[in-house]
Amino acid sequence: MALTRARWGGLVSLVGAGPGDPGLLTRKAAARLRAADLVLYDALVDERVLALARRARRFFVGKRAHRHAMAQEAIHALMIRAARRGRRVVRLKGGDPFVFGRGGEEALALRVAGVRFEVVPGISSAVAAPGLAGIPVTHRGVASAFFVVGGHDVAAFASSIDGLQADRATLVVLMGRGRAAEIGRTLIARGWAPGGPAAIVVDASRPLQQVWRGTVADLAAGRMDRPDAEADTGAATIVVGAVVALAPLASAQDEEPHVNYR
Amino acid sequence: MALTRARWGGLVSLVGAGPGDPGLLTRKAAARLRAADLVLYDALVDERVLALARRARRFFVGKRAHRHAMAQEAIHALMIRAARRGRRVVRLKGGDPFVFGRGGEEALALRVAGVRFEVVPGISSAVAAPGLAGIPVTHRGVASAFFVVGGHDVAAFASSIDGLQADRATLVVLMGRGRAAEIGRTLIARGWAPGGPAAIVVDASRPLQQVWRGTVADLAAGRMDRPDAEADTGAATIVVGAVVALAPLASAQDEEPHVNYR
Repeated sequence: MALTRARWGGLVSLVGAGPGDPGLLTRKAAARLRAADLVLYDALVDERVLALARRARRFFVGKRAHRHAMAQEAIHALMIRAARRGRRVVRLKGGDPFVFGRGGEEALALRVAGVRFEVVPGISSAVAAPGLAGIPVTHRGVASAFFVVGGHDVAAFASSIDGLQADRATLVVLMGRGRAAEIGRTLIARGWAPGGPAAIVVDASRPLQQVWRGTVADLAAGRMDRPDAEADTGAATIVVGAVVALAPLASAQDEEPHVNYR
Repeated sequence: MALTRARWGGLVSLVGAGPGDPGLLTRKAAARLRAADLVLYDALVDERVLALARRARRFFVGKRAHRHAMAQEAIHALMIRAARRGRRVVRLKGGDPFVFGRGGEEALALRVAGVRFEVVPGISSAVAAPGLAGIPVTHRGVASAFFVVGGHDVAAFASSIDGLQADRATLVVLMGRGRAAEIGRTLIARGWAPGGPAAIVVDASRPLQQVWRGTVADLAAGRMDRPDAEADTGAATIVVGAVVALAPLASAQDEEPHVNYR
């Protein structure tokens, strides 16, 4: 092991943990966690996923309600220092590291520091959350493209969707929880049909996954907000487009037999 | 086992195999393959992934050069018949089942037939191919959205991108191999900057992954087509946008130590 360590030196793996279900972790991500000396993880990463990193010190560096997240620069410094000491570092992010995950900034910092790193893609909720709700983001004759955008900044959202054709592409909004009504109103103001199908998938792939379906008008009216929003993790994916009407392509996942992942 | 079978009956799992690297298969997909009685698979699925399905009969049902693919209706009939006999069926597709995979059509057919099924999302090349080439599809201050579209039908491609803002969203074109020059010309004709950064990622995550970087003009001029295109599998992802200039966020994957996935 010492030889291997000397041969390979430190390595930072920017790893996507997927949408939540530990079964949706990739085999490579699992292998990197098992071999890790240090794991830096964000919110929304499942405890059973972290448990794979038996040998590692684990630090939570993400945002949590009412607490400051570790500064991005501090995360960079921690990764770089550990890698230079020959450690195997896993930077574990929900979804995919390069979909709104600041993975690009971390990769740049590692490159500038001359630290060896790799990217291990993860399953993004952009595709998986609709899919697990029975909504295909593309479907022959219905949608031949999809557009993925963040919803946390509604002004940026509004300018991003400018010119987008509602009738051809499925719109997927990540991080739009708590902004659903504003997002719906923005769509209607830009000419999207109020009666067009829309859905919100909350906690996709988790045991308490929930799906609301309705229209853009329902979204705008706040009728698809949950009264008990405190109970979920806050992870939500909004989908707007004709493909929503294809759901429920009902999933049997709620009745699946128990599986021990190896 | 017989009891389990009787309790759960047949099940069809629509499974995404990811971009190629067997390490990018999810643990759930691996578990479904191990338990499968029947596997129906497409082109571009790695032999080492298929080998997980030790107990299963395996049928290739995808398209291959100079051969007819099995008709979609025949695939539906095969899945439905096997599931009704209590079999565990895995329908294995490259990438994610709902990203240009006709997974939606298969899910609809299964629903109509009253067959139990589930969706196991896979890693789509839409995000992973750029990522593995060091290109983040989103990056703070550079791109806050991305648009995914098929490139096999250039007329449909052209109308899909109408109105899209080149300066805000990353454009990802799947299945554009062999149409790269037409796609580049289409972009320029619609006002995209000829000098804008573009890349083609061929065989992402496979041992012979290759990345070409240049401009939209290079794309249009056919300068990013490969002379030895026969040597690869044909899987290619085109990326256009300012994020391409961030590459190479070089990946260390070519020098990774050997890993036996469990």
